[in-house]
Parts: sequence; C-alpha cells; structure tokens
Amino acid sequence: MKLFRHGPVGQERPALLDAQGQARDLSGVISDITADTLTPENLQKLRALDTNTLPVIEPVGRIGTPLQNPGKFLCVGLNYSDHAAETNSPVPAEPILFTKWSKPSGPNDPIVLPQNSVKTDWEVELGIIIGSKARYVEKDDALSYVAGYAVINDVSEREYQLERSGTWDKGKGCDTFGPIGPWLVTGDEIADPQNLGMWLEVNGKRFQNGSTKTMIFDVATLVSYISQFTTLYPGDIISTGTPPGVGLGQTPHVFLKAGDTVKLGIEGLGEQTQQVFAWDPALLD
Amino acid sequence: MKLFRHGPVGQERPALLDAQGQARDLSGVISDITADTLTPENLQKLRALDTNTLPVIEPVGRIGTPLQNPGKFLCVGLNYSDHAAETNSPVPAEPILFTKWSKPSGPNDPIVLPQNSVKTDWEVELGIIIGSKARYVEKDDALSYVAGYAVINDVSEREYQLERSGTWDKGKGCDTFGPIGPWLVTGDEIADPQNLGMWLEVNGKRFQNGSTKTMIFDVATLVSYISQFTTLYPGDIISTGTPPGVGLGQTPHVFLKAGDTVKLGIEGLGEQTQQVFAWDPALLD
Repeated sequence: MKLFRHGPVGQERPALLDAQGQARDLSGVISDITADTLTPENLQKLRALDTNTLPVIEPVGRIGTPLQNPGKFLCVGLNYSDHAAETNSPVPAEPILFTKWSKPSGPNDPIVLPQNSVKTDWEVELGIIIGSKARYVEKDDALSYVAGYAVINDVSEREYQLERSGTWDKGKGCDTFGPIGPWLVTGDEIADPQNLGMWLEVNGKRFQNGSTKTMIFDVATLVSYISQFTTLYPGDIISTGTPPGVGLGQTPHVFLKAGDTVKLGIEGLGEQTQQVFAWDPALLD
Repeated sequence: MKLFRHGPVGQERPALLDAQGQARDLSGVISDITADTLTPENLQKLRALDTNTLPVIEPVGRIGTPLQNPGKFLCVGLNYSDHAAETNSPVPAEPILFTKWSKPSGPNDPIVLPQNSVKTDWEVELGIIIGSKARYVEKDDALSYVAGYAVINDVSEREYQLERSGTWDKGKGCDTFGPIGPWLVTGDEIADPQNLGMWLEVNGKRFQNGSTKTMIFDVATLVSYISQFTTLYPGDIISTGTPPGVGLGQTPHVFLKAGDTVKLGIEGLGEQTQQVFAWDPALLD
C-alpha cells in the first residue's frame, strides 16, 4: 500500500494510492494516519479493503507528512561508503546516530533557509517508519518491525552541523529541514530495501545518483542496532543516510539559495519537489 | 505554582501543590497537564484559582512526568565549568547540544540498566519547560518563553555516549534515562534560576553538590541560542547540564549498579528518588 495524507497543514485527510495509481479517500475508514494505524494488525485491515469502493480524490492538492505526529526522528550519518569518502570521513565502525529536531514537513513544502544561513545542503535518504515497538530486536527479525518506507530530504546546515561545537544535531533540526513522503509505502511492496535507486537534482542538475545497495549498514542492521540503545515505537522515523553528491562534496561547495528547486526521489517511493526560500517567518507555523 | 501529575503510568491526573504544601486535585479544572496548559494565558487561569476550593489528594501515590507528552527533549553538554574540567573537556565556545530519545519518566520511577551496561551514570540538572513558541528570540526576552522548571536526572551510559561512534545521543536515550519532576515549578516562583543549589546522592553518599550559579551559559542564553537553530514549542524540555560529581569524574570511576538508590534535588524544585534495577523488560512499557 501507498498511504498518504493530503490537505492544508494541520487539516490533512488520510488517503491511499490504489493499484492503478488513483488517489482514494480513506477518511470514511480511519480518521487519520497515526502511529496506531501502522501496527501490523491495522495495516492488515487497510489491506483487506476493496479500494474500488473508496471515493476517488481529484485533485489531490497539497500532500502532507504520511503520518500525523511522527515520533522520534533519528538519522544515520555517513552510511554510504562513497558519501563517507566525499566528506573525507572514515567509514564508521558502527552506525553514527544523530537526531533531527525538525517537525517533519510535507514532501513538496518549501525549504526556508535559516536566518543568515549560507551552507544549507541536501541529502536524499531512505526513511524507515516503525510499525511495532522494537526493543533489543535481532537483525533477522528487524524488518517485521518496519511499517514502511518513505523518501526523506535530510536538509542540513553544514556550518551549524560542523562548525558550531558539539554534535551534528544543531545543523539538522532547523524548521522545514524534514520533508518526508509523498507516501508511506508499506514493507510488503518493497521486495528489497537494499536495491532501490535514488537521486536528487537542484535546478534540473543531477547531483545525487545512488542506490541503497551501497549502504554500509542495511535497514535490518540499523533497526536492530538502534533498538539496543533506545526503544523504537510505532511512528518513529529513521533516516538512513545519503549517497554521494551532497553540496558539501562539490568542488567548490554548492549550497542552496533562495529560488532554487530541489527534486528528489527513490525507486518505488515517489518524488519530492521543494522550492527554496530566503528566511521568512510567514512561511512557517 | 507547583504543577504535577499523579497516578499509575498512563493514567496520571493533574494536580498542584498549594501554598501550604498540600496536594490539590486539578482534574475538575483541566483534564490533564499538556503543552497547551503551559501557555502564559492558561497558566494565568490556573493561578487565579482559589486553591482552597480544590479537593485535597491524600495519599498522592506515584508521581508521573509533570506534563503529558512532552515535546523535544534537548540537552546541553559541559555547561558547568567545573564539570567540563572533571571530564577533561575544554570549556565550550558555544553551547553543546544533544538529544535525549528517552520518554521522560516520573521522578521516582526506576532506573533500569540497559542490557550488559556497565557505565550508567547520573547527572542532576535544571530542566527548562517551554511555555510559548520561541523562534529567534532575544536573550532579554527569553525567560518569558519559559513556563517553568523541573529537576531532571540526565542518566547517561558513558560507553554508549563516548565509545560507540558518533554523537552523544546514543548514550542518553535509553529507556528510563529521563526522570523529570516531581513538579513543574512556574517561572514566577523562581526568583533567580541562576542561584539554585543542587545535589545528588547515591546510597546516601553525596556525589554532586553544586549551584546553577556556575553554569557557563545561563537559562536565558540557552533558550535564545537554541531558538536560532530550531523552533522551541510549548512542552519542549531543555536539560541544562550538570555540575561536577558524576561517576565518570570519580577516581576510580563509579557507575550505577542494581540495588543502588539515587536521590537528587534542586532548591525550590523538589527531590527525586530512583531505585536502580538490572535489565528487566517487565519494568518497562
């Protein structure tokens, strides 16, 4: 299934994309897509629906985050061997974890540059959305705790991340830095999460062109690993790192500026398009 | 005001401590203490209550987190000059920020050691609870965005934090590592947040004995600073760092073990007592 939410910010309604790619309204079935929707039992109930009986949505309009009130938003750093190389970082011995403070935003919502920011960068990433409580789970079982996947742009301010003391969190959690979606694609639709093409373009120029094949720590390893340090709950998000081609990896560096258009996508998970704006509080909540 | 919540986990009811130190039931006034309760307007409504008309609670029983569903749980590292010294760390040029993934727990709830953990440590800290949306706020205005304060034990697994690659987050977010409370003490009751004595004892031995006087970056500076990187929302928590005396600062190191009792407190904010248990999933949610 491809689950999504559409409508103005804060008023999104639940929907799915049927097998023909037609948007169908779920608001007669569930009031919203929440952490509770993502449990295996509740996903099974949705899977059992005859989608032909659901009202068609036309037009879809704005797409929001694929679930309301996501939980923790964890990220994995330097998880592609070739991206580690482009940032002059050694391949990590175990996963590097950090946290995104941003409220996740819709896949096509604007990116608003922080005040005075000059080093805002992009990162196309495979996002994992947790469906069941995962605590000390084994790698072999780990995928059964995953509800599904989504595209994430792990927007990052490199000065805040790398030059402002302490952990990376400071450069990862600015407002609008967490576009996710368009869809939450349930795990049964993704035959192999380690064989998905992924790409990102800025103003039509392709910067990232990779595949989840080159992840250092795969999805199952990450879910198992993180569950040794903290309990993952339904609705938690893990963004799994980015392949080469970020702005910091260019010579000279390339960073986002007002007026830019960022497009990104992952095979089977859909695409995102973000317009970049200069700092403007009117664009925020 | 001293606001708190009491009752079994997940069934807490709102309450306050009146001027005589008597626990009074607020459940006839508000259904729970949430982020929304903490706005200046809503706190003012509670302040206007005649507490003598509220039912007395006797006995209080278990105390929960002082608000339901807290938001982001941010922490400041090495924010006391003498604590930086005891960990052989330079005084930071600007605040070091990291994130706690733990669900906050009640002030007297157990600390459960992670599986195979041998370096679980303590940190008494002044917690800030945000009451109003704070985005790029000036230091001079920053305290007006604070709803109140609470004691926090920033329980930390030093091996996970320091020896397992990447940021500190890995050692800060284990289950039960975020006791907060007993009360949320509103800002009007704290004449000077930079002049509060604070202490922590393990099995009756005093290890930490400090004061918020020796913070490097004070409360107003921290709220203003963090609001340059991410928006703070009502219900977000900032734990502001610890004075000297953590287990990692002892020679030889002292870490928590099953059977230990941790007591800690901050002047005007009350006390916490935690029993330490070996790993046991029956003690968790």
